[in-house]
Amino acid sequence: MGNIIQIPKPVYILSSATVVGQHEKKGPLGEYFDIVGDADDTFGCDTWEKSESEMQRLALSRALNYAVKKDSDLEAILAGDLLNQCAGSCYGLVNFDTPFLGLFGACSTAAEALLLSSLLCSSHMNRCAAVSSSHNASAERQFRYPLEYGGQRAPTAQWTVTGSGAFILSNKKEDFVNTSYNGSPVPVISDVCIGKSIDAGITDANNMGAAMAPAAADTLLRYFKESSSQPRDFDIIMTGDLGFEGSRILCDLTAAEGLDISAVHCDGGLIIYDRIGQDKHAGGSGCGCSAVVLAAQVLRGIRTGQVANILFIGTGALMNPTAIQQGASIPGIAHLVHISSDIL
Amino acid sequence: MGNIIQIPKPVYILSSATVVGQHEKKGPLGEYFDIVGDADDTFGCDTWEKSESEMQRLALSRALNYAVKKDSDLEAILAGDLLNQCAGSCYGLVNFDTPFLGLFGACSTAAEALLLSSLLCSSHMNRCAAVSSSHNASAERQFRYPLEYGGQRAPTAQWTVTGSGAFILSNKKEDFVNTSYNGSPVPVISDVCIGKSIDAGITDANNMGAAMAPAAADTLLRYFKESSSQPRDFDIIMTGDLGFEGSRILCDLTAAEGLDISAVHCDGGLIIYDRIGQDKHAGGSGCGCSAVVLAAQVLRGIRTGQVANILFIGTGALMNPTAIQQGASIPGIAHLVHISSDIL
Repeated sequence: MGNIIQIPKPVYILSSATVVGQHEKKGPLGEYFDIVGDADDTFGCDTWEKSESEMQRLALSRALNYAVKKDSDLEAILAGDLLNQCAGSCYGLVNFDTPFLGLFGACSTAAEALLLSSLLCSSHMNRCAAVSSSHNASAERQFRYPLEYGGQRAPTAQWTVTGSGAFILSNKKEDFVNTSYNGSPVPVISDVCIGKSIDAGITDANNMGAAMAPAAADTLLRYFKESSSQPRDFDIIMTGDLGFEGSRILCDLTAAEGLDISAVHCDGGLIIYDRIGQDKHAGGSGCGCSAVVLAAQVLRGIRTGQVANILFIGTGALMNPTAIQQGASIPGIAHLVHISSDIL
Repeated sequence: MGNIIQIPKPVYILSSATVVGQHEKKGPLGEYFDIVGDADDTFGCDTWEKSESEMQRLALSRALNYAVKKDSDLEAILAGDLLNQCAGSCYGLVNFDTPFLGLFGACSTAAEALLLSSLLCSSHMNRCAAVSSSHNASAERQFRYPLEYGGQRAPTAQWTVTGSGAFILSNKKEDFVNTSYNGSPVPVISDVCIGKSIDAGITDANNMGAAMAPAAADTLLRYFKESSSQPRDFDIIMTGDLGFEGSRILCDLTAAEGLDISAVHCDGGLIIYDRIGQDKHAGGSGCGCSAVVLAAQVLRGIRTGQVANILFIGTGALMNPTAIQQGASIPGIAHLVHISSDIL
C-alpha cells in the first residue's frame, strides 16, 4: 500500500472549539477563538497543570455543545498534550463518560488525533473527538525554566501557545441538521498521510523549527509524489508549527525537490501572533497552536466559503529534556490531513 | 454503537518478540523470552533512557525477523512507553522507515497499541506493528528516585519491568507461509473494547493496582454485559498489570456485580516474577510487563495449542509525579483485546 490512506466513507468535522489565553486573544486571530481565559491564564485553577487540563475540558465541552451532542454520543476521545505522561489530557478529560485513547505526537498531536479519528470514524465508529492542548506556563517550566526565572530566549525559539482545540468527527451527515453549521459548507476529511520520524541531526532545543521541517518536507514529498494533485490545487497548505526558521527551511527543502509550495503555504505558528507587535521570536508552538489555528482560521474559512481545499500538516519534535541533556538529536514528525469542503 | 468493536476482517498477530533484563530472565517465564540483556541491563548504552530505546529497537527488529518482513512492509508502527514524551519509542524506533504513531496509555500501552493496530489492519492497512517498553532504572529515577538512592519500597508498590514487546499484525493469512509459525495455531484478534478513564479517588502513588482495578472492572463489566460469552468461555482473562492488591480488588469488584472471573483470571504483574523467591512486593508493572507476558506466556500458549480463547486487558495509571505532588488522584484505564486461536 502507498503513503496516502483514502478515507472510504466521508468523515465530517462536525464541530470545533477553541480555548486560548491572553496572548493569543491579542493576536491576529483573537476575535475568532471561542473561549478566552481570565487575565492571568489560570482558568480558575491553582496550578498551571490543572489550568491546562481545564482548558481541554472546556474545549471538548464547547465542541460537544456546538455539535449538539453529549459525551455518551461519542465512541472515543483521542487526545494528547506536551505534559509528562500526557497529564493535560488524562486529567482534563477524565470526567467525560467516553472511551479514551491517549496519543503522543508532540506538537503534531492535533493532526495525529484527527488522522486516527477519521480512520476510526470511516470504519469502526460513528463519532469521536480529537483534543489537544498546551499551556505556556506548564510547558515552560517543564521543558525549560519556570517563567519567574526570566530566562532569555533565543531568536529561533518559539513561544508555547496557551490553547486547546477540540474537534468532533462524525460520519453522519444528518448530525449537522440541528447545529448552527446547517446550511454552510462543512469540512470533510478525504485522505491522510501518516508521518515518519525523521532525524536530521538537529541538537539545538531552541530551534525546533529546524528539527521538524525535514519531517514536514518528507510527508509533503511523499504525498505529492503519490497524489495526482499539485500545490496550486490547494487553497492552503498549513503546517503547524514550524515557525519562522522552520517554515523557510521547509519551503527550501521541498523546492530543492521540485515541489514549490510557497504560494499556498502558511504556518500556524506564524499567524497566531503579530510578528512585529507581539515579538514572540520565531512564532508559536505547542500542541494547542495548530489545533486552535486550524479551527479558528482554516475551518472557519471552509465554513464561510473562503477556502475549500486544504492540507493540514501537524509537525512535532519527538524529544524530551533528558534526551537533549544526554546529547541526543531531535527527531521530527509530520502527519497530514486533507480537508475539503462539502455542501450538505 | 456499543462498547465492543468487532474486527470485521481477521487480523492476525503474525509475530511477537520480547526483550527483557536480568530480573525477568530469572523469573518463571525466563526461558521463554527472546532476547535478554547483558548483566547490567544497559543493552550496551551509556544511559538508561538509551537502553530502553535500544530494547524497543531490538524487539521490533526481532519481531520483523520472525515475521520474515522488513520495516518497509509495515504501514505503521504504533508505540509508546512511560518515559516523559514517550522518548523510549521516539528514539528507539526513529530509524525504521515506517510511518509512526505515538501512543500514551501508561501501562496499558501494549493493549492500546494492539487495539488500534487491529482496527487499522482490518480496514485501512495490511500490516502494522505495536511496540511498548519500560526499563526499571529509567522509570524509577523519573517517577520516584534513582536506584542509587536505595529508597525503601511500600508493600503495595510494584516493580517496573525491564522489558519490551513488539507485535506484527497482518490481515494476510499468507504472511504466515514463510514463517516458523506455519502449521501451528495462530493468534487472531476478533474484537476489542476501548477503556474509559476511571478515577476512583486513589491518591497513593505506591498503590497503582488499587487505582487501575476499578478501570479493569469497568471494561470487563461493559464487555460481558454486551457479549454473549461468560468468563468460563475463556481459557485466560489476563490483566496487565494490577499486581497482588489490584488483582484482588478487581476480582472483588466484578464479583460484587455478579461477574466471577476468579477461575480464569491471571495478571501479568503476578506471573512475571517468583513472588516468594524474587520478592518484588506487589508484582511487576510498566508498559513492558504486559507486553512481554502476553507474548511469552499467552501467545506462546495459543501457538502451542494449550489455550485458544483469551481476553487481554491492559491496565494503566494515567498520572505523573507532578500531579501526585499537587494532590491529584490517579485515574486508571483498561483496554481489552480478545484474542483467539485460528488454524491456517
